[in-house]
Amino acid sequence: MKKINIKEKFTKFSDQWSPKVIEEMNDYQFKLVKIENEFTWHVHEDTDETFFVIEGTIGIEFEDKIIELDAGEMIVIPRGMKHKPFAKKEAKIMLVEPKGVINTGHIESELTATKNEWV
Amino acid sequence: MKKINIKEKFTKFSDQWSPKVIEEMNDYQFKLVKIENEFTWHVHEDTDETFFVIEGTIGIEFEDKIIELDAGEMIVIPRGMKHKPFAKKEAKIMLVEPKGVINTGHIESELTATKNEWV
Repeated sequence: MKKINIKEKFTKFSDQWSPKVIEEMNDYQFKLVKIENEFTWHVHEDTDETFFVIEGTIGIEFEDKIIELDAGEMIVIPRGMKHKPFAKKEAKIMLVEPKGVINTGHIESELTATKNEWV
Repeated sequence: MKKINIKEKFTKFSDQWSPKVIEEMNDYQFKLVKIENEFTWHVHEDTDETFFVIEGTIGIEFEDKIIELDAGEMIVIPRGMKHKPFAKKEAKIMLVEPKGVINTGHIESELTATKNEWV
């Protein structure tokens, strides 16, 4: 058990759209991601997914709307809801989701992060 | 589904040591708490518990050490580990834990928050 400084962890990597695990709680993980430009449309059929914006501004496109989030804001995307995250400038976010969730849902693409990488 | 501004939610209540639910993800909850002075020693036998410091500085006393956390820092306390949170000045924290967790563990006291209160 040790404390984690979230901003300090972001200095440990520079690749985008590649979630890094920083901690686990029961069967859940906290992951940091740097994002810029558009991700791929995807859906997580079996779990909700939580986004916290740590730095910058992101958007999440849904089938019927776009929600913008600034630093200090969070959202829980219900399971089964198609979404596409994006950021005009690089933004830093934290995800909370069960272990084993694949970032692109059931769609494999070059953006799929298959490793359970820690920082 | 809607986004949540964490600091704005803290303006909605002033009582201390009384967790307020702001959102749920699967069977987990995100809760905000204002804390000052000392809580009671307690343990959660069945679950880990996550603390994020949003504003201020807190300490968590364990049987063998004290860990201090500043804003932007987090810690996951493993299940079964006795702990006592404290804050010299009022601090604002976010907890992540399964639905139904009681703030004082199995020990009932005047600090026990029995309501599942949302803000």
